[in-house]
Amino acid sequence: MNIKALEKIALSVRALSIDAIQKANSGHPGLPMGAAELGAILYGELMRHDPADPAWADRDRFVLSAGHGSMFLYSILHLAGYKDVSMEDIKSFRQIGSKAAGHPEYGMVAGIEATSGPLGQGVAMATGFAVAETMLAARFNTAEHKVVDHYTYVLAGDGCLMEGVSAEASSFAGHFGLGKLIMYYDSNKITIDGSTDLSFTEDVAKRYESYGWQVLRGSMYDFAEIAKLTEQAKAETGKPSIIILTSVIGKGSPGKEGKADAHGAPLGADEIAATRANLGIPGDFYVAPEASEFFAAKRAEWKKAREGWVSMFDAWSKANPEKRGEWDAFHSGRAAPAALPGFKAGEQIATRTAGNKALVAVAAANANLVGGSADLKGPNAVGLPADAGTWTRENRAGRYIHFGIREFAMAAICNGISLHGGLRAYCSTFMVFSDYLRPALRLSALMKQPVVYVLTHDSIFVGEDGPTHQPIENVASLRIIPNTRVLRPADAEETAEAWAMAVEQNEAPVAIALSRQNITVFPKADPDWKNTIRTGAYVVKQAEGTPDAVIIATGSEVGLALEAAEKAPGKKLRVVSMLSRELFESQPAAIRDAIVPPGTRAIVCEAGVRSGWERWAKPEDILSIECFGESGPAPKVAEHMGMTADALVKIINRA
Amino acid sequence: MNIKALEKIALSVRALSIDAIQKANSGHPGLPMGAAELGAILYGELMRHDPADPAWADRDRFVLSAGHGSMFLYSILHLAGYKDVSMEDIKSFRQIGSKAAGHPEYGMVAGIEATSGPLGQGVAMATGFAVAETMLAARFNTAEHKVVDHYTYVLAGDGCLMEGVSAEASSFAGHFGLGKLIMYYDSNKITIDGSTDLSFTEDVAKRYESYGWQVLRGSMYDFAEIAKLTEQAKAETGKPSIIILTSVIGKGSPGKEGKADAHGAPLGADEIAATRANLGIPGDFYVAPEASEFFAAKRAEWKKAREGWVSMFDAWSKANPEKRGEWDAFHSGRAAPAALPGFKAGEQIATRTAGNKALVAVAAANANLVGGSADLKGPNAVGLPADAGTWTRENRAGRYIHFGIREFAMAAICNGISLHGGLRAYCSTFMVFSDYLRPALRLSALMKQPVVYVLTHDSIFVGEDGPTHQPIENVASLRIIPNTRVLRPADAEETAEAWAMAVEQNEAPVAIALSRQNITVFPKADPDWKNTIRTGAYVVKQAEGTPDAVIIATGSEVGLALEAAEKAPGKKLRVVSMLSRELFESQPAAIRDAIVPPGTRAIVCEAGVRSGWERWAKPEDILSIECFGESGPAPKVAEHMGMTADALVKIINRA
Repeated sequence: MNIKALEKIALSVRALSIDAIQKANSGHPGLPMGAAELGAILYGELMRHDPADPAWADRDRFVLSAGHGSMFLYSILHLAGYKDVSMEDIKSFRQIGSKAAGHPEYGMVAGIEATSGPLGQGVAMATGFAVAETMLAARFNTAEHKVVDHYTYVLAGDGCLMEGVSAEASSFAGHFGLGKLIMYYDSNKITIDGSTDLSFTEDVAKRYESYGWQVLRGSMYDFAEIAKLTEQAKAETGKPSIIILTSVIGKGSPGKEGKADAHGAPLGADEIAATRANLGIPGDFYVAPEASEFFAAKRAEWKKAREGWVSMFDAWSKANPEKRGEWDAFHSGRAAPAALPGFKAGEQIATRTAGNKALVAVAAANANLVGGSADLKGPNAVGLPADAGTWTRENRAGRYIHFGIREFAMAAICNGISLHGGLRAYCSTFMVFSDYLRPALRLSALMKQPVVYVLTHDSIFVGEDGPTHQPIENVASLRIIPNTRVLRPADAEETAEAWAMAVEQNEAPVAIALSRQNITVFPKADPDWKNTIRTGAYVVKQAEGTPDAVIIATGSEVGLALEAAEKAPGKKLRVVSMLSRELFESQPAAIRDAIVPPGTRAIVCEAGVRSGWERWAKPEDILSIECFGESGPAPKVAEHMGMTADALVKIINRA
Repeated sequence: MNIKALEKIALSVRALSIDAIQKANSGHPGLPMGAAELGAILYGELMRHDPADPAWADRDRFVLSAGHGSMFLYSILHLAGYKDVSMEDIKSFRQIGSKAAGHPEYGMVAGIEATSGPLGQGVAMATGFAVAETMLAARFNTAEHKVVDHYTYVLAGDGCLMEGVSAEASSFAGHFGLGKLIMYYDSNKITIDGSTDLSFTEDVAKRYESYGWQVLRGSMYDFAEIAKLTEQAKAETGKPSIIILTSVIGKGSPGKEGKADAHGAPLGADEIAATRANLGIPGDFYVAPEASEFFAAKRAEWKKAREGWVSMFDAWSKANPEKRGEWDAFHSGRAAPAALPGFKAGEQIATRTAGNKALVAVAAANANLVGGSADLKGPNAVGLPADAGTWTRENRAGRYIHFGIREFAMAAICNGISLHGGLRAYCSTFMVFSDYLRPALRLSALMKQPVVYVLTHDSIFVGEDGPTHQPIENVASLRIIPNTRVLRPADAEETAEAWAMAVEQNEAPVAIALSRQNITVFPKADPDWKNTIRTGAYVVKQAEGTPDAVIIATGSEVGLALEAAEKAPGKKLRVVSMLSRELFESQPAAIRDAIVPPGTRAIVCEAGVRSGWERWAKPEDILSIECFGESGPAPKVAEHMGMTADALVKIINRA
């Protein structure tokens, strides 16, 4: 280990970080300065990676959970030779168009494994990466060839470890013995408000022991120690490891190191001058020649390692053509079409139950679909075929994951699984508890990860569990997250198509809202409905001639609309099922107008808040729910809240 | 301690629970059966309470965090003599109109301290109760009289302890040494999916030790031991205590005890018969005579204890008339009017900064306003006047709380503080991280608790931090939670009124959305705007004669609308600031029409998603943001995303 060179790399990380932040007049120097040594040794010595091929499937992954320290990542990626981060990007840090965005953004820079910034989630995403590694290793490795064999590293700060999501994920990681997950805890004892003594004095080491992790301790500023501890972490294959590194925020800044001041604002010209003098930085945006030389010399070594893997992969491919075929399918980004279940008009079946049949079909056609529920396997109806197995310490090839009652970590872990490559992830809970995982779903959307969220018990028809368990606003609140597709199928047949739609794309998370209660499968007027529904809506019941009104409904309320249409015989009524309002609204006018003709009165019916539907109907023509629900049998609750066919008939007849 | 009687009480809890759940054909017998002994000893021996006065200010509090076990609470409240839970309510468990709702609902039954069911939050709310107790004790107690001196008990299950929110709250409670918080962990090792071995094998005892709690262990079925452990918990005044009680889910059911089957479904007629035979329950909805007799005999004792407190309180009132006056003010449910800060038209000031001046004024007038931030005291600008002090182990009279980077627990703790009585709570974080605390805000709304959520950095004008930190959909997503008031003030003057509006009611949570960036204070056309704004909107700029269009804007976009109106001189434009859309929409038509005349073209401008605004304007007349933001200086981001006065002028001129 060339410690001199590593020191110069760390120096360069500090130099680039303070200058980029100063130039942007915005950013967080505290972490890049405090943890620069870790960046140097990780990218210089410890990690198996090759900047020439950032997509190398068997690379080690690194997640900067404390994403505000983004200059840490940009600096080290630039120094190591990742092409996507140029000196120009660093000099335009936090400016529009720069790849060096405010927080690390997945998809913007090859070499950034996950978008981070919302604290704690990086720990859970890293857990997901480690889960994926075990699954792929179990499926693809042979006695001769280990084509999947890499580590996941994560850097977490005090903030990450205070957040509940990291607690959930770490308990999960300990339970499942993720031995190739290695977390460095940048323990600088400073947060924005000041010392961690203000609010955070728990014994983190003991906590991680309680989760079943290996706990190691050292200094951020001793390369040999970090290397030794990382070896110890790797040697413990049955437990994840946390390496607690004592550090100094803003290290190198004579006036600000060790202080909250260093956390989130530029050092200022004077302090930069003092820091340069202190550290021996000769000028602007300084890169030490020794740092450049070190990484230049590394290129051949990296290349050799990667080519070694490629040779092994080729040999494995020849020896295992079937596995190789599956590998390609896994990594294609495309789902194979499934033999979707069929249903008969008149059949009574909850869409969650139909959803399970569809899930099983999709999972049978796509062996890379993995996932589970936050302890609601039965109620969510998300079990996989028995031969898919359960993912455990002993059976890493299993595909069903028992996430435990940890909704937020579940979703963030699924983001990690999805980001890893090779796998697609689904997760599930009750619709009302989508609130618990919402921050991770937002990241799915921002990172364009096609995680499928199966959210059952999707309205007041939950019944007896009452208002804490009855979603009123949740479907609406998911629809408005950019790049999120919310599908609320109206019967079993639509549910099967919803699952197909969820996996036939790979650029957005999909939330499928499913019913607890039975719903009658209804005949569809549109003979081509299975295609039309991909526009977001189609005609379920056609009116004779020009309709007096179009009733737009979703989910279980389509059945209610059909019932109301029967009860209003004097009216010519078209009934439209709008599986996905956002999708429908994104269609060209011609497609929209064919289904909901402009100028025709529209009536909307959905067992949730009205907000968002007013584009389609006047407030008085929307049958909605504007208050929290009630505890009681579902039909009684519906009656109590006025969500009935009779109430809809009243609206229809009011015209 | 009359163990015979306690056994009969536990028996009666089991009997009532299984029958109520069977009759409802819905519910969760596992916990009431498994933890019946704890209910018996808490309400029979350990808790200081009096069913004759459930609102007794100095009563011990009990929170059933595992709210699905609601029959546990209804049974024991009924047996103990709480009038709100009659046998008829129990017999109509989970039916509309019954006070025995699916999950315990605050406000429905005097004796239920908090709505629970969303797992983990009860632990955090209990933490809030314990915080409130220390604050009130520090303020009101004297050497002679301890008018505030009670405990907070909470029953948590495996699910509660898996949720991140309980981890956050417990770390907080340990840090702050909440010695009067006592948690019973009903450790039955069963969740819905089966054994906790599936996903939850961490060492809970060790984890709680790491938080700085006292950890005690015992059996759920040994009354003497529970009493002894509770004494030990009380004796440890510097630490919260967790009492881990090994238990058996569904205890007493020969066929289901110890199994996941017992958790969440009625036992069924056969199993009820077997359970009755096993336990010696002679019939339907059985209440053992010994249980009734025990509690009947308790009445005098309870009364004596409570009257003792009342006498002390009277003596204290006489000795401390000023304190008594403050006590009454604290418990009045009304806020005193504040000397709100004034601002001048043309002044440049961020609404978060103005918000701090208003907060300080409100806090000065209302010494019972307490709260803080999730480690963003400076950025959120939510510090209190210095004399308010910081709440610490040493200074329980302090009012500023360092919640740490624990948004979800922060909000749930504030719910607990608010529910306790005597205090009002506020909390704060960045608007985008309202997602992290959303499940607790939903409970604020459901429980009608007037917690004030100060959510700063409320739009893309956050700037450099980029899309992870720029709220796009968050304001809209808060507006649609029933019984939630979202106020998005447009300048410093409106911000002051927003704070006044937030505290002049006590039936709903309020989210105040505040800017990071400076905003120019603008003159208001409506001379009575400080009254009119309480309808949710008022006229900022009047058009001469009949307006060609009304521009509706909120927050920082009102300034943008005013700028656009200047730039479109040919048009007669009225500009309306809509501080709260929901509030405005709830007004009578006459009030709405006076501000936004029907038939007049309306144009909307808000730096967030369009959804919800379509009631007021056509989609093409809404200047909104439909995708995630960008990292860059705020004005550049605004330009990049088309959120500019020029873009608005284009819409205006397109007519």
